[in-house]
Amino acid sequence: MQGDTQDVDALMRDMGERSTAAARHLAQADAATKDRALLAMADAVEAALPAILAGNAEDVADAERAGLSAATLDRLRLDAARVAGVAASLRAIAALADPVGAVAEEWTRPNGLRIRRVRTPIGVIGVVYESRPNVTADAGALCLKAGNAVILRGGSDARRSSAAIHRALMAGLEAAGLPADAIQFVPTADRAAVGAMLTGLDGAIDVIVPRGGRSLVERVQRDARVPVFAHLEGLCHLYIDGAADLAMARALAVNAKMRRTGVCGAAETLLVDEAVAATHLVPILDDLAAAGCEIRGTLAVRALYPAALEATDEDFRTEYLDAILSVALVPGVEGALAHIARYSSHHTEAVVTEDDAVADRFFRAVDSAILLHNASTQFADGGEFGFGGEIGIATGKMHARGPVGVEQLTTFNYRISGSGQTRP
Amino acid sequence: MQGDTQDVDALMRDMGERSTAAARHLAQADAATKDRALLAMADAVEAALPAILAGNAEDVADAERAGLSAATLDRLRLDAARVAGVAASLRAIAALADPVGAVAEEWTRPNGLRIRRVRTPIGVIGVVYESRPNVTADAGALCLKAGNAVILRGGSDARRSSAAIHRALMAGLEAAGLPADAIQFVPTADRAAVGAMLTGLDGAIDVIVPRGGRSLVERVQRDARVPVFAHLEGLCHLYIDGAADLAMARALAVNAKMRRTGVCGAAETLLVDEAVAATHLVPILDDLAAAGCEIRGTLAVRALYPAALEATDEDFRTEYLDAILSVALVPGVEGALAHIARYSSHHTEAVVTEDDAVADRFFRAVDSAILLHNASTQFADGGEFGFGGEIGIATGKMHARGPVGVEQLTTFNYRISGSGQTRP
Repeated sequence: MQGDTQDVDALMRDMGERSTAAARHLAQADAATKDRALLAMADAVEAALPAILAGNAEDVADAERAGLSAATLDRLRLDAARVAGVAASLRAIAALADPVGAVAEEWTRPNGLRIRRVRTPIGVIGVVYESRPNVTADAGALCLKAGNAVILRGGSDARRSSAAIHRALMAGLEAAGLPADAIQFVPTADRAAVGAMLTGLDGAIDVIVPRGGRSLVERVQRDARVPVFAHLEGLCHLYIDGAADLAMARALAVNAKMRRTGVCGAAETLLVDEAVAATHLVPILDDLAAAGCEIRGTLAVRALYPAALEATDEDFRTEYLDAILSVALVPGVEGALAHIARYSSHHTEAVVTEDDAVADRFFRAVDSAILLHNASTQFADGGEFGFGGEIGIATGKMHARGPVGVEQLTTFNYRISGSGQTRP
Repeated sequence: MQGDTQDVDALMRDMGERSTAAARHLAQADAATKDRALLAMADAVEAALPAILAGNAEDVADAERAGLSAATLDRLRLDAARVAGVAASLRAIAALADPVGAVAEEWTRPNGLRIRRVRTPIGVIGVVYESRPNVTADAGALCLKAGNAVILRGGSDARRSSAAIHRALMAGLEAAGLPADAIQFVPTADRAAVGAMLTGLDGAIDVIVPRGGRSLVERVQRDARVPVFAHLEGLCHLYIDGAADLAMARALAVNAKMRRTGVCGAAETLLVDEAVAATHLVPILDDLAAAGCEIRGTLAVRALYPAALEATDEDFRTEYLDAILSVALVPGVEGALAHIARYSSHHTEAVVTEDDAVADRFFRAVDSAILLHNASTQFADGGEFGFGGEIGIATGKMHARGPVGVEQLTTFNYRISGSGQTRP
């Protein structure tokens, strides 16, 4: 085992060095070349459909034999439509504006110096994910678009599916004359490879993006010695204010909770202003129950809505990712703010109110990545922001926050143009 | 000692908790309140002039007895003019625009959702510095302006000077009704306090800013478990291209190297295009020598300028911070890029040329925080950028890069305004 770990370390260090070299090349690649590669990748994915499905069938068969959960099998399974979606996603990323070289800010100093803040690639991104093979293409393509090299470490459950997709990405890089090392795929299932990536591979990896369940994200956040773009959970709150429009509140509550219950932007807790408990609570909870949602309420909620089960403190700390909702009454927006400050995962929170002063107070006081007024929490998604794809959603405060799209995968430098200015 | 360290850990954890509480309060403070505090601080510093100078005299006497270097004594020593400078700096920071609440970007989606990216405070900043007492005021004020709480850990050489300035800052906070814990000063000289800060104090500290010499920055970068805004060194290059105007090149070389030799933006290496070695090298080096600069050159440089000493490879890796310059000839801009890629500290590099294509190539290919065309490297300074003050210069790629002013001491969130939109 000792020998194996040393082998893995040497393998990973070599991948790191090759990524650094590829990143230097990619940073100079123009938009047209990168987009040509992305379009060629899409073509290659479509051409490789039989190989991808064959590899996937083997992965799925192994996973079924191993007794993996239905949810894991669903994430793992590909069909012609899903592979077409992978190709479509590559083409959509090709169609995005190139963030590299974009001037984020520009100003001129009294001495005539013109200062531009210009976006540049970060360098090398490490992506650690689990059983979704499509992450191979999405993450690889988003990193490439932003001029970064990427090291992909997918879950072993999906190894044949991901390897087949990775081969198509390599074909696209080659077709555009870009270095094959721009998108590397870790070829071993040894978990020591993840540990090596979390050390940064001797400075080669600039940032790590974990994509997967809570235990993966927890491990990465705990052990990484390089910056991490991630969210541990989306314990999203929806607050129905005393000045909420009832019809809007009903529609938003059902959508925020039930549109898709397994996404990080799904609402997990409903807070209702005591002032409108008598009028708003029962219709909203009836709608949710009719949509198949289990209601867990505080004593005060159960007094008005006896069908609710009892909510414990633990419920208010739980991201169900399921058709279950915790419900509490709060004394106005200040009560909602206090509850959110205590239980929030700093991901996404929404307020429903016709009172702009309440919305303003909510926006200023809640310290979460995404805040919404009179809109569903399920809009917490890079696509819905118009980012054209996201590599994940970050709840940290450094560099990226909220959906991490191609722009958030860049850094910047200052470029100053003068006419011989010396500093007095 | 075990007991002492435990005491320090408990002290620091308590400071961390109080900072977190203060940060929550500060995030809601409006611009007028923060500015009132900053102006009151300036008044309090002026009123405390005798106490500050008395404390400083004791610090200086101790430092002289301990045989500290002349440079350290100069950084430590305060007089009435320097204290007036501290007060002026506080007033200048008060006059800056409040970054908190500023809308960095704003757009509307096809479904009518209006998305704003709004700047918010980061939270708690830890600042670790050495013998400059004025950092106490500058760092405290910049963090406050950006709505952050700060934990200041100054060098023990300056402890009385810094404590006297800190008391004036506290008076300013109190005058504006802001929490005293917004700007805390570590009261112990025990180095375990720094170690505790580098762990982040149980998540209380969001980012660490080291201000001081190389060994301090190295320790912080190596040991910190939280993000760090810093630069290890400024090994800045000035490249004189074949298409450079000679008069401009002469003026820029002297200014970039000799205006102040001890600042991180001072040029340490001069690269001259072989194409103009015969015409440009000697006049430039004559100017530098006349200004008191020692020239260390490669063999090729010494062939044209025999007065130069021999430059070793180590010279090209050395940030002199002194009146010494390494000089090499390079084959055009590509040669300069290769040299810079090998030796740069990713801080600041400049190109002198009348050829815009060369400047463009330099701007696109050099991966440093600050790039200049036809201007002195000594403009690498937040004040010269118009930032109105900086807490330091960062060479990392995450979040802040280049001068770290009040805007770089903020993060952001997304605030989305709708009219009842649900996600299909």
